[in-house]
Parts: sequence; C-alpha cells; structure tokens
Amino acid sequence: MADEVKLYAFAEGSFVCRAKIALNLKRIEYENIEEDLSNNNKSADVLKYNPVHKKLPVLLHNGKPISESLVIIEYIDDVWKGVPILPQDPYEKAVARFWAKFIDDKCMPALSKVYSSNGDEQDIAEACEQLQILENELAVKGTKFFGGDNINLVDIAADFIAYWLGVLEEVTEIKLVTKDKFPKLTEWADNFVNCQVVKEILPPRENLLALFRKRFGKA
Amino acid sequence: MADEVKLYAFAEGSFVCRAKIALNLKRIEYENIEEDLSNNNKSADVLKYNPVHKKLPVLLHNGKPISESLVIIEYIDDVWKGVPILPQDPYEKAVARFWAKFIDDKCMPALSKVYSSNGDEQDIAEACEQLQILENELAVKGTKFFGGDNINLVDIAADFIAYWLGVLEEVTEIKLVTKDKFPKLTEWADNFVNCQVVKEILPPRENLLALFRKRFGKA
Repeated sequence: MADEVKLYAFAEGSFVCRAKIALNLKRIEYENIEEDLSNNNKSADVLKYNPVHKKLPVLLHNGKPISESLVIIEYIDDVWKGVPILPQDPYEKAVARFWAKFIDDKCMPALSKVYSSNGDEQDIAEACEQLQILENELAVKGTKFFGGDNINLVDIAADFIAYWLGVLEEVTEIKLVTKDKFPKLTEWADNFVNCQVVKEILPPRENLLALFRKRFGKA
Repeated sequence: MADEVKLYAFAEGSFVCRAKIALNLKRIEYENIEEDLSNNNKSADVLKYNPVHKKLPVLLHNGKPISESLVIIEYIDDVWKGVPILPQDPYEKAVARFWAKFIDDKCMPALSKVYSSNGDEQDIAEACEQLQILENELAVKGTKFFGGDNINLVDIAADFIAYWLGVLEEVTEIKLVTKDKFPKLTEWADNFVNCQVVKEILPPRENLLALFRKRFGKA
C-alpha cells in the first residue's frame, strides 16, 4: 500500500522539527506543507486537522490527522519499523516517556518564561534548575545521547535546547547554557546537532536569528 | 517470576487513582503504600523514587520506580496482558494519547485555576471551554466511554472530572458541570464511576468532602 504522508509544518519551529527528525530517522517520504505563520493566520487545513490546539505540526497519514509532537513521534514509531525511536524494553520506554514529558512540562515553560520576562532573575534561576536536572541525568547515564549511543525520543524532545536556545541566547543576550555550568548538556547539544539525521532537518541558523530578532524587536 | 508491585499512594488523589484503576483493570496484585501527606512531608521513599517531581503516584515494579500517572498507565499496559488500556490500532492509540494529554495540559490546569481563584468569571469561562471540547468529543463519538464500550486511557485520565470535580463543586458551591450544559459529560461521569473496576477504587465521597472542606477552609 502506498502511504500518503503529509506534514503541516513551519520550518523554524522546534516542535515541527521533532516530527521531521522522527520521519527522517525512519526514512519516510512525505510531503512538507509549509504554513505561513507570518500574520498569525492558520490555514483552513490546520484548523480542520487540529481544531483543538490549532497548532503545528500536524501529520496526515492516509488522510488521518495526528497532532501534538510527542504523540506524532510515538505514532511514527508504532507504524513504521526501522530505526526505533522509543526503547523496546517497557521500563526503558517508560523512562524515556518520563523525560520527554519532563522537557515539555518543566523545561519548555521555564525557558519560555525567561525570554518572555526578558531575563527575570527568578525565572532564570528556575530554568537553570530544570536544565540542571537534565545535566545530572546525562552525567548519571554517561552516554553520548539521552538514548544511549543513538538518539531517542528524549533527545528529539530536547531539540529546542540543543539548537534553538543558543540562537535565542545570542539574540537576547541572556545566556543560560554555558560550558562551565552545563558541560554535559553542551556536549550533548553538540553531538545532537551534528547527528546526520538531525543536521539534515534543522533550519539554517540565520533563519532562526532573523525570526528571533524580529520577535524580540532586535531587527 | 513473582512480580513485586508496590504503589506509593494517597487514597484521595485522582492521579494516584488513575494508576490504581489501571492496576485493577489488569487484576494485578500490589502492595499499596499509603503516604501521609497531612503535613506536606514526603517520605524518604518518594524522594528517592521520584526525585524530580517528588509526587505521587510512584509505581515500583521489581524495585524499579516509574512516576507520572500517564506514564505509569502506559507501562502497566505494556507489561501486563489482559484487558487492554490503550487501543491496539496505532491511529486509535495516538488519538487516545492526544486526549489524555489534552486533559492533563488543558483541562486540569483550567479547573485548578477556577478553584484556586475561588471562581473568577474568566477562569470559569476558560474551564468550561475546555470541558465543552470533551463534551463535543463524546457527542461525536456517541459511545458510552471515550474508549467506546469500555473505558480506556482517556476515561482513566479524566477520573478527576468524573468524580472529584462534583465534590469540589459541592464544597466550593462553584458548579461547572450541569446536566443542562454538559449532558454527555454528565452521563459519561455517571457511567464511569459506576464501572465495577472504577467503583472498587474510588475513595469514599465523605473522605473527599472532608479533604476539600479542610483545604477550602469550609470545615
């Protein structure tokens, strides 16, 4: 059966890139449908396929829509064989889900708060506390990636921290992840963005710079 | 192999009861370790087994800890055969995960806001908006449960809405879910709490009344 796979996407979005990395890991051919978010309009398709959140990414597989990036990744891993994205062992799988959820529930809101408050000290302290938990986890594991020798769900979930955050730090001049404070996380980020399957997906740095400069009025 | 299963629990907690319902569905024997939360102290075990969130429930399976209620439910479904909790079909599974996540990310915070603000009008409107989305989903499905003829991950995730919310409404006199406004949700809640496997687990209503009265200074 010929699978029809479409991804409603926004090239500069870290949540969208999670889905793209998962698709790329499995070497799935798909049609990328780039949404124009410049005037905050959502296309009729996005409103139709993700009426609850009206957000990207949306994966359309043989006409059936799936949204929420972590749900999409699990779906891709369930449907397509090949390189596994979640561990096979149920316990390791639960651990991976725990950390992916931690990134979404704790790290992402904490980081978002730092940059929307323009670097409030308390917000910075709280974000660093969450990042420290990831740092410790990497130190305890002692592996190249959260997934071990290869990237898994957790690494993909942390794509913002690996790539987007550095650009945001540059634009806002609010630096959180330094080599001194977070040596493991810095090393991991470097490894992650240099993964072939990731590198092929990440948007050019200058595009993110332009996007963030515009967003933070530093154009 | 003799499985050793322990649940660090708090009988009145809706997140804890999610894990209990899942264990009960699979008819898994486990040791219930009731935590004393009366003085906000966490036991050494909870701090050891869930150092990141320091929250209940924690499932300990053959010495290995799992936390976060939705992660625990997926783990239970992965490890133990018997009554399935998530659909087998990958698309239906993704849909179930989407709704469980919606309940945790949107409904629970919105409900929490209503009662911590003592019924702020805007907060009530926002909570009702989220509940309406669930109402519509039940109407579209036209089934007894979110899971169809039987409860699944989504029903379990919504246990607070089915049971705890009514008690909270009584104590605070801030009523959100009426039969008029949410007929499907009301019917679903009734079906859910009357499910044998759920009924065996739910804490007595008077215990919740006492807990919420104390919490809201209405003792």
